[in-house]
Amino acid sequence: MSVTAPLGFKAAGIAAGIKAGGNRDLALVVNEGPLRAAAGVFTANRVKAAPVLWSQQVLAGGRVRAVVLNSGGANACTGPEGFQDTHATAEKVAEVLADSAGEIAVCSTGLIGERLPMEALLTGVDSAATQLSRDGGLAAADAIRTTDTVSKISFRRGEGGYMVGGMAKGAGMLAPALATMLCVITTDAEVTSEQLDAVLRRATTKTFDRLDADGCMSTNDTVLLLASGASGVTPDLAEFEKKITEVCADLARQLLVDAEGASKAIAIEVVGAASEDDAVKVGRTVSRSNLLKCAIHGEDPNWGRVLAAVGTTDAVFEPDRINVAINGIWICRGGAVGDDRAKVDMRPRDVTITVDLSAGPHSATIHTTDLTAAYVHENSAYSS
Amino acid sequence: MSVTAPLGFKAAGIAAGIKAGGNRDLALVVNEGPLRAAAGVFTANRVKAAPVLWSQQVLAGGRVRAVVLNSGGANACTGPEGFQDTHATAEKVAEVLADSAGEIAVCSTGLIGERLPMEALLTGVDSAATQLSRDGGLAAADAIRTTDTVSKISFRRGEGGYMVGGMAKGAGMLAPALATMLCVITTDAEVTSEQLDAVLRRATTKTFDRLDADGCMSTNDTVLLLASGASGVTPDLAEFEKKITEVCADLARQLLVDAEGASKAIAIEVVGAASEDDAVKVGRTVSRSNLLKCAIHGEDPNWGRVLAAVGTTDAVFEPDRINVAINGIWICRGGAVGDDRAKVDMRPRDVTITVDLSAGPHSATIHTTDLTAAYVHENSAYSS
Repeated sequence: MSVTAPLGFKAAGIAAGIKAGGNRDLALVVNEGPLRAAAGVFTANRVKAAPVLWSQQVLAGGRVRAVVLNSGGANACTGPEGFQDTHATAEKVAEVLADSAGEIAVCSTGLIGERLPMEALLTGVDSAATQLSRDGGLAAADAIRTTDTVSKISFRRGEGGYMVGGMAKGAGMLAPALATMLCVITTDAEVTSEQLDAVLRRATTKTFDRLDADGCMSTNDTVLLLASGASGVTPDLAEFEKKITEVCADLARQLLVDAEGASKAIAIEVVGAASEDDAVKVGRTVSRSNLLKCAIHGEDPNWGRVLAAVGTTDAVFEPDRINVAINGIWICRGGAVGDDRAKVDMRPRDVTITVDLSAGPHSATIHTTDLTAAYVHENSAYSS
Repeated sequence: MSVTAPLGFKAAGIAAGIKAGGNRDLALVVNEGPLRAAAGVFTANRVKAAPVLWSQQVLAGGRVRAVVLNSGGANACTGPEGFQDTHATAEKVAEVLADSAGEIAVCSTGLIGERLPMEALLTGVDSAATQLSRDGGLAAADAIRTTDTVSKISFRRGEGGYMVGGMAKGAGMLAPALATMLCVITTDAEVTSEQLDAVLRRATTKTFDRLDADGCMSTNDTVLLLASGASGVTPDLAEFEKKITEVCADLARQLLVDAEGASKAIAIEVVGAASEDDAVKVGRTVSRSNLLKCAIHGEDPNWGRVLAAVGTTDAVFEPDRINVAINGIWICRGGAVGDDRAKVDMRPRDVTITVDLSAGPHSATIHTTDLTAAYVHENSAYSS
């Protein structure tokens, strides 16, 4: 199903020879309309890959005819030549679709600092165009994989019968060998680009933005949302946002589960915060503590490392009013020893760390993974 | 030599039974005067251990008669009872020295969230007091070790014949199983507590504060500087600051070299920054990139991960004007591919990463280590 679940979309995923191994490495997603409304969110990293710089300009217009995505190379830190490569890729897709390059978004993922093999890529665009189909969503999802062990797809049916479909790869902040998260979500609902933009920003803020496996932010992260309007259904916007958020959450969860090198999926649940910002800040800081992530890997409910991380933030709290539970056992109460740590069952893959700041009614959950020797291996061996 | 290199100081290091293994675990450093001037810097973590809260109060008075230090337990997150334990320790030292508890500093290092075995500790204070000697500096330095494989000591002779001596343990942000850095520096120069305070703050800012192995900040970090005035020498203050800074830098270097689980000592040298703050901020952010630290461990000169980290800061720079050298080879120029990465010799233990922001005349160097499977093992196995 993936991005071709909604009406009005065709896709293809082919092997263009960009990757050395001969696997699929080029995806094309085409919106056949009648609408071309689109929105996008991009990495906050100031060092942005050429395709991000290009696609930001395209999305500023609120219209996207097609998205071309490649694995096997991030086209980041490649200078003006790299930007020309992205431009040429968009021009090529525009040519085969007899459309305007200004409405072609481009996404790339792979190693930073290397030029793409443009001849293979441009020939691949021709090939992908001939294979575009209403069944192409799975092949497209497969083509954007890098170190992902499985494709990530999701879909939901909305009230009135419209559809939402999506695909993602990660990487991202999760299996960060490639440090890239790409996601394309499609819908056949009738919505404007302004509506898509508002919905996508809120949905990603509460889903993808709350994954933080290693604190490393990619140069290429991109989430695109395209609407064809082909269902003829104008959705209730709140219900539509709920569906988009569900698809984002589902894909984010799949990224977390597939995070390489991880043996635990850790939810940092911050409650009792004075503001949602405080809750996110504390969750993110705790999720970035290498010491804590090693302890969880060792199945050690080391709440001292949680407090040491919380203490580095400027969130509103009193150190002697913090409570911490791990998998439901409140082993730290009032900033000191609480219930018996021997009661904590650390064996399940899912670990929930609850931090109660006792400072207000707000909460947020950040998802991360443990730090393992496999992570070190994966990320020290990748480019060599 | 250590803390007893300067005149006017006695020290002892004994096994009090705080640690399970029977190794030395209690140190006492006593200033016999005639002066008792002192200054201290403490962890910026808002979750501060009981001994930090106590010693901050003591140092506010600018006078320290003695410092008592224990390994085998951090006395952090131990609530009001933990603070009472620290208070009782200071009272005990005051009693054996027939002095005031208000001038006794206390330092602890070890696991967070456990009470100290107070009977053993207080008996140990009696025992340490009987062993105080002008030769006790080495035993004291040994007693504060936790996972340190060697004692860290340093001394310098100042102009006119005064001495500076110091001991440290780390841990710290370096071998962060215990996440604690403790340091005591002594001098027999004639200086006031105000002078010591100004000198110590500047010296630590440029030395200990620029070590960042894993971004984790301890609840117990403490650096104390005590002056006895026993040499009768009033130093030139600039020269005195230089000597104190040298001792801090020497001890910081020893901490880095002894960082467990590390196979590389990495210097992140940021040049061309618009301000020193920018240089420190960029250096610290790069030093905290797990992806980069894994790459260096794998002897992969992955400059893309350097740029991806720099891009997450708000320092002044243009992405297409950043240059990066690893071990002297400028493999990234103008934000894109530079010299041949094959020319970079990654085999030495010392690795220097130079980041040129092309934004101004300021610079700073942050020291860190690589991320290894041994780090993961050390920190996942520690408390279990």
